[in-house]
Amino acid sequence: MTGRLDPRESWSAIDRCSIGKALDVLRNRSTFLLMREAFYGTTRFEDFAERVGLSDPVTAARLRELVDEGLLEREDYREPGKRTRQRYRLTEKGSDLLPTLVALMQWGDRWENDGGGVELRHQGCGAKVGVELRCADGHALDAGDMELAARRRRRAGP
Amino acid sequence: MTGRLDPRESWSAIDRCSIGKALDVLRNRSTFLLMREAFYGTTRFEDFAERVGLSDPVTAARLRELVDEGLLEREDYREPGKRTRQRYRLTEKGSDLLPTLVALMQWGDRWENDGGGVELRHQGCGAKVGVELRCADGHALDAGDMELAARRRRRAGP
Repeated sequence: MTGRLDPRESWSAIDRCSIGKALDVLRNRSTFLLMREAFYGTTRFEDFAERVGLSDPVTAARLRELVDEGLLEREDYREPGKRTRQRYRLTEKGSDLLPTLVALMQWGDRWENDGGGVELRHQGCGAKVGVELRCADGHALDAGDMELAARRRRRAGP
Repeated sequence: MTGRLDPRESWSAIDRCSIGKALDVLRNRSTFLLMREAFYGTTRFEDFAERVGLSDPVTAARLRELVDEGLLEREDYREPGKRTRQRYRLTEKGSDLLPTLVALMQWGDRWENDGGGVELRHQGCGAKVGVELRCADGHALDAGDMELAARRRRRAGP
């Protein structure tokens, strides 16, 4: 990447990096994979546990974190003749992780998988779905076209 | 996401998911943050350790993993009058993680940060950089426009 912030020694990303803050929420592999399952349509506790390959206690802890962080929400549901149970649904905050998961899938497809797995396709035209780097004005770009700039942190009060 | 694979019970993503395989490489928070630093222009061991806030032994272990996995490469360099040292550079495989990191940054900007941090801008027009979901035919889309499909795993020999 060109245009790194200058002078490089005058700042550090440690305490104010949005990537770091995102990873404080998405703490580990199983968190990402539970979110993947939610996108794939999984809603029930036992399906999350089985499909990600986690023990019940770990599944419970991770799902609780995802609810506490606002990525999933729990709701009651009841099938005819059965007792009330709970299911998990993506919130807006959780749904907004889709580009991150698609980006990981795209990288894994290219570098770590032999063409197996599942594929996302555009319903309209059937073409494979991926992520692209674009600027807010709509220009497609790659790393060489970007520069880093410091954003001013909002401060509380005078 | 609509169009989930049907019947849902007939398959599982556990053993062939590209997201899972990607996360087998990007094992933890510090791995992601070391890759972020590489994109920001960091090349030297002590700068990685300081800028990510890791101990020397942890930095050494993580950088070794990233070299072993082919995301970074080590090379010798020598400044005039000084001894030969090593620096780390992004490989093509490592560089290809940029969309994933930008997607995480975008999510963190929106949901976990108060407007502080750094920002990626398009050098040409100055507009903010982000990721977009698009299909291979160039259509912009969101979760509702996608469907999951199974890809056939390549098999070895007859």
